[in-house]
Amino acid sequence: MTGTELLRQLAVPNDTKLVLLVMDGLGGLPDPDTGKTELETAHTPNLDTLARHGSVGMTVPIIPGVSPGSAPAHLALFGYDPVQYQIGRGVLSALGVGMDLGPEDVACRVNFATQRDGVITDRRAGRIPTEEAERLCRKLAEIQVPGVTVDIRPEMQYRAVIVWRGPGLSDRVTGTDPQIEGRPPLAVRALEPEAEATAAAVNRFVEEANRVLADEPRANTILLRGFGRLPGIPTVGELFGLRAAVLAIYPMYRGLAKLVGMTELNAGDSFADQVEALRRAWDDYDYFFIHVKGGDSAGEDGDFARKVRVIEEVDALLPGILELKPDVLAVTGDHSTPAVMRRHSWHPVPLLLSSRWARPNPWVSGFGESECARGALGHIRSQELMGLMLAHGLRLQKFGA
Amino acid sequence: MTGTELLRQLAVPNDTKLVLLVMDGLGGLPDPDTGKTELETAHTPNLDTLARHGSVGMTVPIIPGVSPGSAPAHLALFGYDPVQYQIGRGVLSALGVGMDLGPEDVACRVNFATQRDGVITDRRAGRIPTEEAERLCRKLAEIQVPGVTVDIRPEMQYRAVIVWRGPGLSDRVTGTDPQIEGRPPLAVRALEPEAEATAAAVNRFVEEANRVLADEPRANTILLRGFGRLPGIPTVGELFGLRAAVLAIYPMYRGLAKLVGMTELNAGDSFADQVEALRRAWDDYDYFFIHVKGGDSAGEDGDFARKVRVIEEVDALLPGILELKPDVLAVTGDHSTPAVMRRHSWHPVPLLLSSRWARPNPWVSGFGESECARGALGHIRSQELMGLMLAHGLRLQKFGA
Repeated sequence: MTGTELLRQLAVPNDTKLVLLVMDGLGGLPDPDTGKTELETAHTPNLDTLARHGSVGMTVPIIPGVSPGSAPAHLALFGYDPVQYQIGRGVLSALGVGMDLGPEDVACRVNFATQRDGVITDRRAGRIPTEEAERLCRKLAEIQVPGVTVDIRPEMQYRAVIVWRGPGLSDRVTGTDPQIEGRPPLAVRALEPEAEATAAAVNRFVEEANRVLADEPRANTILLRGFGRLPGIPTVGELFGLRAAVLAIYPMYRGLAKLVGMTELNAGDSFADQVEALRRAWDDYDYFFIHVKGGDSAGEDGDFARKVRVIEEVDALLPGILELKPDVLAVTGDHSTPAVMRRHSWHPVPLLLSSRWARPNPWVSGFGESECARGALGHIRSQELMGLMLAHGLRLQKFGA
Repeated sequence: MTGTELLRQLAVPNDTKLVLLVMDGLGGLPDPDTGKTELETAHTPNLDTLARHGSVGMTVPIIPGVSPGSAPAHLALFGYDPVQYQIGRGVLSALGVGMDLGPEDVACRVNFATQRDGVITDRRAGRIPTEEAERLCRKLAEIQVPGVTVDIRPEMQYRAVIVWRGPGLSDRVTGTDPQIEGRPPLAVRALEPEAEATAAAVNRFVEEANRVLADEPRANTILLRGFGRLPGIPTVGELFGLRAAVLAIYPMYRGLAKLVGMTELNAGDSFADQVEALRRAWDDYDYFFIHVKGGDSAGEDGDFARKVRVIEEVDALLPGILELKPDVLAVTGDHSTPAVMRRHSWHPVPLLLSSRWARPNPWVSGFGESECARGALGHIRSQELMGLMLAHGLRLQKFGA
């Protein structure tokens, strides 16, 4: 029996309120000049107080050494095995632009590309700007394919997403991207007999797209890849008895949360809006997932100071959450994004668990990588956090007699 | 999917250089008089500096409480599940004396023994000296068995090894050792029909051996046990994309490393020779496994001071490795061998990971059990070290999007 299955057997609903605050890419590495990480550099009196009175530790997102993307890193924080539930590129892109995906729908990624004399000469169509992709998507939206509804939306630059809807669709089809330039695009092939009709419909769409785009100077064709469906994931309601809601500004995180059965709330445009929305929805849910994106983007840009500021902004508004008196507040990141690396990394992520029932670590001076590495919680896998949150909310029965 | 399978999916080759320095039996327990372990007693300025600037932690060889032999402990450090890949005694003995083992060869352990009137009266033939076993092995090497080549080599005292080579051999046969004295030796039995010919050949050999040894005063028979083959292990090249080499003075460690696809280099007779050999081979491999045996032997002898000296010798020559500027240097042991216990133990082993991307633990004062127990890496399984080494060498792609 997996840990998740055990929690499912033990979980019972009650009236406690759990809040998971994810600061995307929170973990960092020291600035070589100061020896302090982004979080250790930030002035965070509220988080520091919580760290001293609560329990701190470190979360290992997947396994030691593995740097995760946002999707597996978040699924782990929600209590799921991130290796068991893998989400395809097309589905993630659809979630990322906020498209609704039903269980039977199929999503894929689209590259606008350039072809000459039957071969792909530029897989990214000269990196056309997003506005141009928007115009092209409007043209492609006119295409009719019998029996299938094709919903195409621009993503960034030369990228777009298609959600295919209709009876009997399959995601077991290959893509058209030859991966290297100078080769002709591939025809979509069915990977199982039941997918033949889907392959035919997609090939028909590509043919029509080539006709519609024929006069475009750069983006005169499309390449499709990453066909997939929503994975069949049990919800946090089914597993843990939670009525959960998500407060995320970026669509992909709302999409991920909806995938596991969380209700999407209007999170506004800022952390202040999120705190206000939390207050309004407080009575209606048990578990709130609040997602703050800015630190990860700053880390990926190598902007140490901006990441520090994002953390400080969160700290400053934290009293707005504390006033609601959550029974359990967990603050962590989905993964580390050290500004000195400009990328997601594998380093464990600081974790803070505040609850009446948290075993305190009074030797800890504040919330930071060095302090959390020696905290009361030790190193845990991100997937194990859900059990700790439920426990501190007294939502788990005793195991065995 | 196991962690190893996940690493296999994510591993990509690059130009980084990884060094794993294993000080056999490194972990210890305090001298009751000083309260300090062997490693804490040793003067190790170089390791202490690396500990402060790198990350330290503890490796748990198998699971908490389990004292491993050298084979599973090393396989774990190479990234393998030590419980999944178990290596038989006969194979280990063959590796230990430096015999070549092909995938179809069968190895077993040999005890020289004494029999009187058809029963075994001494399972160890009065613990005859190694030189006597050498002479007896030369006698037994004359025996001819149709269809099988028998390669017999002395090990220590009354112990020897046989490697059986020939078409259609099987390792699914029982041994001849009755385990207690006063009983007759057992006939070898086939555990599956395909092993009948092997059982017959081995019984024929034992019969001939009894004839050849009949006049010996003590070692007038042999007992065979631990029949086995090389396990089919994927190589570190296949799994992790590494071109790996081993620098070990003892044959068994070279054999273990070759088992997972490492290239055997001439390591000379001392740690100084190993460092020099590392320098010569530096450009030709990505991953170097350096094995230092002395600390384990000293621990097993209960010689605290000698174990301290072995550690100090390694520390003194460490600059020779550091001059090569490895991207990742991991220093640990395969297991603990506390001199006060005179045996392998289950205690976690100090681990030091030095790399540009290691998250430092500036609160750590040096390399020792007490400091490593509160280091930045926490406690990991030995098997997880490979993922960390690959990550710090930037050899793992991101998992998921």
